[in-house]
Amino acid sequence: MDHDLKRRTAAEFFGTFWLTFGGCGAAVLSAAFPELGIGFVGVALAFGLTVLSMAYAVGHISGGHFNPAVTLGLWASGRCANKHVVPYILSQLVGAIAAAAVLYLIASGKVGWVPKGFASNGYGALSPGNYGLTACLVTEVLTTFFFLMIIIGSTSKGAASGFAGIPIGFALVLIHLVSIPVTNTSVNPARSTGVALFAGGEYVAQLWLFWLAPIAGALIAGAFAKWLYDDGRIYDTVVVEKRAA
Amino acid sequence: MDHDLKRRTAAEFFGTFWLTFGGCGAAVLSAAFPELGIGFVGVALAFGLTVLSMAYAVGHISGGHFNPAVTLGLWASGRCANKHVVPYILSQLVGAIAAAAVLYLIASGKVGWVPKGFASNGYGALSPGNYGLTACLVTEVLTTFFFLMIIIGSTSKGAASGFAGIPIGFALVLIHLVSIPVTNTSVNPARSTGVALFAGGEYVAQLWLFWLAPIAGALIAGAFAKWLYDDGRIYDTVVVEKRAA
Amino acid sequence: MDHDLKRRTAAEFFGTFWLTFGGCGAAVLSAAFPELGIGFVGVALAFGLTVLSMAYAVGHISGGHFNPAVTLGLWASGRCANKHVVPYILSQLVGAIAAAAVLYLIASGKVGWVPKGFASNGYGALSPGNYGLTACLVTEVLTTFFFLMIIIGSTSKGAASGFAGIPIGFALVLIHLVSIPVTNTSVNPARSTGVALFAGGEYVAQLWLFWLAPIAGALIAGAFAKWLYDDGRIYDTVVVEKRAA
Amino acid sequence: MDHDLKRRTAAEFFGTFWLTFGGCGAAVLSAAFPELGIGFVGVALAFGLTVLSMAYAVGHISGGHFNPAVTLGLWASGRCANKHVVPYILSQLVGAIAAAAVLYLIASGKVGWVPKGFASNGYGALSPGNYGLTACLVTEVLTTFFFLMIIIGSTSKGAASGFAGIPIGFALVLIHLVSIPVTNTSVNPARSTGVALFAGGEYVAQLWLFWLAPIAGALIAGAFAKWLYDDGRIYDTVVVEKRAA
Repeated sequence: MDHDLKRRTAAEFFGTFWLTFGGCGAAVLSAAFPELGIGFVGVALAFGLTVLSMAYAVGHISGGHFNPAVTLGLWASGRCANKHVVPYILSQLVGAIAAAAVLYLIASGKVGWVPKGFASNGYGALSPGNYGLTACLVTEVLTTFFFLMIIIGSTSKGAASGFAGIPIGFALVLIHLVSIPVTNTSVNPARSTGVALFAGGEYVAQLWLFWLAPIAGALIAGAFAKWLYDDGRIYDTVVVEKRAA
Repeated sequence: MDHDLKRRTAAEFFGTFWLTFGGCGAAVLSAAFPELGIGFVGVALAFGLTVLSMAYAVGHISGGHFNPAVTLGLWASGRCANKHVVPYILSQLVGAIAAAAVLYLIASGKVGWVPKGFASNGYGALSPGNYGLTACLVTEVLTTFFFLMIIIGSTSKGAASGFAGIPIGFALVLIHLVSIPVTNTSVNPARSTGVALFAGGEYVAQLWLFWLAPIAGALIAGAFAKWLYDDGRIYDTVVVEKRAA
Repeated sequence: MDHDLKRRTAAEFFGTFWLTFGGCGAAVLSAAFPELGIGFVGVALAFGLTVLSMAYAVGHISGGHFNPAVTLGLWASGRCANKHVVPYILSQLVGAIAAAAVLYLIASGKVGWVPKGFASNGYGALSPGNYGLTACLVTEVLTTFFFLMIIIGSTSKGAASGFAGIPIGFALVLIHLVSIPVTNTSVNPARSTGVALFAGGEYVAQLWLFWLAPIAGALIAGAFAKWLYDDGRIYDTVVVEKRAA
Repeated sequence: MDHDLKRRTAAEFFGTFWLTFGGCGAAVLSAAFPELGIGFVGVALAFGLTVLSMAYAVGHISGGHFNPAVTLGLWASGRCANKHVVPYILSQLVGAIAAAAVLYLIASGKVGWVPKGFASNGYGALSPGNYGLTACLVTEVLTTFFFLMIIIGSTSKGAASGFAGIPIGFALVLIHLVSIPVTNTSVNPARSTGVALFAGGEYVAQLWLFWLAPIAGALIAGAFAKWLYDDGRIYDTVVVEKRAA
C-alpha cells in the first residue's frame, strides 16, 4: 500500500470511528440521562458534528466520506476513483466496528448497564416508533439521496469554496431530527453494522436494509447529480482525488 | 424548456421538497416523541437546516429560493428574471406537495397514527397557541419581511462572499423559534400548501393567509432593499441569474 | 441627514428591531409553551441568531452594532466615528421600542395572555433565579466585556475575513446560556429598555443597571482591545466606516 | 517579557477564562434551572461556543489553545514553539482559576445556593453517571486524541482557510454531548483544575486523571498528526507562530 493510500484509509478509519463513537455514544450515554439528558436533538447534533468536524480535519486527505454509501454515491457520480472504493469501505467498516467496541467498553463501565439496542437501526418492532418496513425503506432511500445531493452539490463547481463541511454536517443533523423515530437513522451502512454486532442477533438480521436502502439512495443521487451538476464542464470537487488520478 | 431552465426548476423542486419534508417531517415524526422528542427547538433547527444545506447544494444553480415569497421578493428587488418567476413557483409547489405526500406515506407507516394538523399552518382555533388573525397576519408579514432582508442583504455587494447560506438558514431557525406558537410558522406559501392538502379542509380554508402575508412581507422587503442596497452600483448577487440574463 | 447616514441608521434600526423582536419574542411566545417549549436553550439560540443573521445582512452598511454598548465599545477602541455614536444609539433605541410594541401586539393576540415581565431584565426579586445586585452587576460587566472582545477581535487585522458574524452571533448564544438565570441577560441597553417600557414600573426602575453595566464592560473592552490588537499597525475592521471617515 | 509574549499570554488567559466561565457557568447556573433549564445540550453548546468565539477573537494572536493539553499536543506535532509552552500553560491555569473564582462569586449571589460539585470532573462516585475509572480514562484519552486531530487537521495545509474555529468549537460541543455523563467532560486540565479548587478536596484528589488522560491523548494525536499531515511539505498552521520563530 503506497503512502497516499495509507493516509487516505487512515483518514476514513478515524472519520468513521468518530462518527460512530460520537453519534452512537451520544445516543447510548446521554440521550436518556435523567432530567438533563440530551434527547433526540442532542443525538442529532452529535452525529452531524462528527462529520462537520472530521470533514475539516481530514477531508483534504481522503475526501471525507466516512460512509460506504457516500463512497458509492460519489463513485457513481464520477467523484471517487475505482481503486479507492474497496479500501475506503473496508476502512470505514473497521473504524465503525472499533468505535462500537470502545463505546461498549465505556458504556459497560456503569454498574448495571444494559445494552438495549445499543443505538442500532431497525424497522418494525425494532424501529423506535414502530414504523413498518416500507416507511423505513422509503425514509432511508430518500434521506440518503438528499444527503448525497448535498455532498455533491456543495462541493461542485460554482459552490462556495471551503464551506461544504458546514451544510454536509448540518444536513446529517437534520436527517436525524426527522428520522430517528423511524429507523433510528442510518444513511450509513458502516455505522449500522458497527453497533449491530454488539446489539445482538435480531439487529444483525435487519442489517440488510441499512446496506440496501442507503446505497440505493446514494447511487440514484450519484447518477442524478451527473445530470444536474456536470454539463460538460470540468470539476474540481475533491482536490486530493484529482492529484491521485 | 432549455437545459438551464430544466436544471433550475429541478433545483427548486428538490430544494422545496427537502424544506417541506425535513421541516414538517421533524414536526410530524419527532417533535412530540415520548420523553426524547425534539420539541419546537428541534423543529426550528430542522426547517433552517433544510435551507442551509440546499442553499449550498443548489444555490449556484437556481439561486436557492425554495419559496414563492422569496422568488417574488427577489423579483421585486430586481434579483430574479421575469421569465423565471412562474416556473420557479410551480416547481416549488409541486416539490412541496410531493414532499407532503411522501411524508404522509411514512407517517402512516406507524400503526394508529392520526394526522392531527400534519404540521399545517393556521390562525385562531388552528394556531398552536390560539393566536387571533391579526397577531398571525402581523407575525407572518413581519418575519417574511426580515427573512427577505437577510436573503437580499447577505447576498448583496459588500457582504462576505459565500457565507449567505449560513445567516439565511439560521434566520429561518430563529423565525421558527419565535413564531411556531403563533402560526406554526409559514413564511412560505408552498410549504403551507403542501401539507394543508393532506391535513383537510379547515386548513385549506386558511391557506389564503399563508399566501397573502408572506408575499406581502416579501414584496415590501424587495422594494425597501432596492433603496437600502442599490444606490446606483452594480450588484452580482446571484451569479447564475446574471449568466442567464 | 445624508444618504449614507440614512442607510446606516436604517440598518441599525432594523437590526436592533430584529434582535429585540426575535430574542424577546422567543422568550415571551415560545419558551414556556406546554410540553414542546424551547426553554432557555431556544431563547439563547434566538438572541444569537438575530445578530448572526443581521450581521451578514446589514453589517456592511452600518457595521452591525444593534446595541448602544457595542457602539460605545467600538468607539472607545477607535472603530466608530464620533459623528455616528448618537445617531446609532438613537436608532437602536427606537428600533428596540418599536419591536417591543409589535411583540406586545402579537403576544396579546392570545386570549388570556398576561405580560409577566415581558422578557425584561432584572436583579434581586426580578432576577429569574433571584440573584442579588452584585452577582448581576458582575455578570453583565463581564459578559459584555467578552462580547466586545470577540466583536473587536474577530474583525481585527489578521482575523479570518468574513467570518466575524458567526463567532459574534454564537457568543451571544453562549452569553444567554450562562446568564439568563441571573439577569435574564441584557448586555444591550436598547433591548432592555424596549421591553421594560411595556413590562411596567418596577422593571423601568431597574433599567439603570442595564445601561451602566453593559456600557462599563464595553468601554473597558474597547480600551483593552486598543492594547491587544492595535500595536501601531493599520486596521480595516469596518470597511464602510473607513469610507465614511 | 516582550510585547509579543504579553499579548499571547493575555490571549490565552482570556480565552481560558471564557472557556471555564462560559462552559462551567452554563452547567452551574442554567443546566438544572426549573422547567426551562438548558440540560446537557445547553452545557455542551456553551463549552463549544466559548472556543468557537475566542478562536476567532484571539486565535490570530496566540493560536487559540486555551488548554494545556492542546498546547502540549500542538508542541508534540511541531506547531508550538518550545519557549511558549510554559507561559501558555501558566496563563491558562491562572485564567481558569480566575474564572472559577468569579463564577463562584456570581453563583453564591443566589440565596441558599450550594456548590455541589461546581461543574468539576470526576470518576467513580464523582462521575455524573457513576462510571468507573477505566471508562473515564478511556473516554478522556480518546476524546482529547480526536480533539487534537481536528485542531491540527483543520489548520493543516490543504484545509479550507479560516474555517478552523467552526469545526474545533463544534467538536467540543460534540465531545460534551457524548461524555458529560461519564466524566462531566474535561479534555482540558486547566478547566478541571479551576473549578476543582472551589469544589473541595475529593475533586482535587481526582485531578490527576484530568491532567494525565487529556495530555496523553493530545501527545498521541500530536505524534500521529506528524505522520498524517506532514509528509515533507511546509505548513503554515499558525501564522503568528511562524512570525515569532
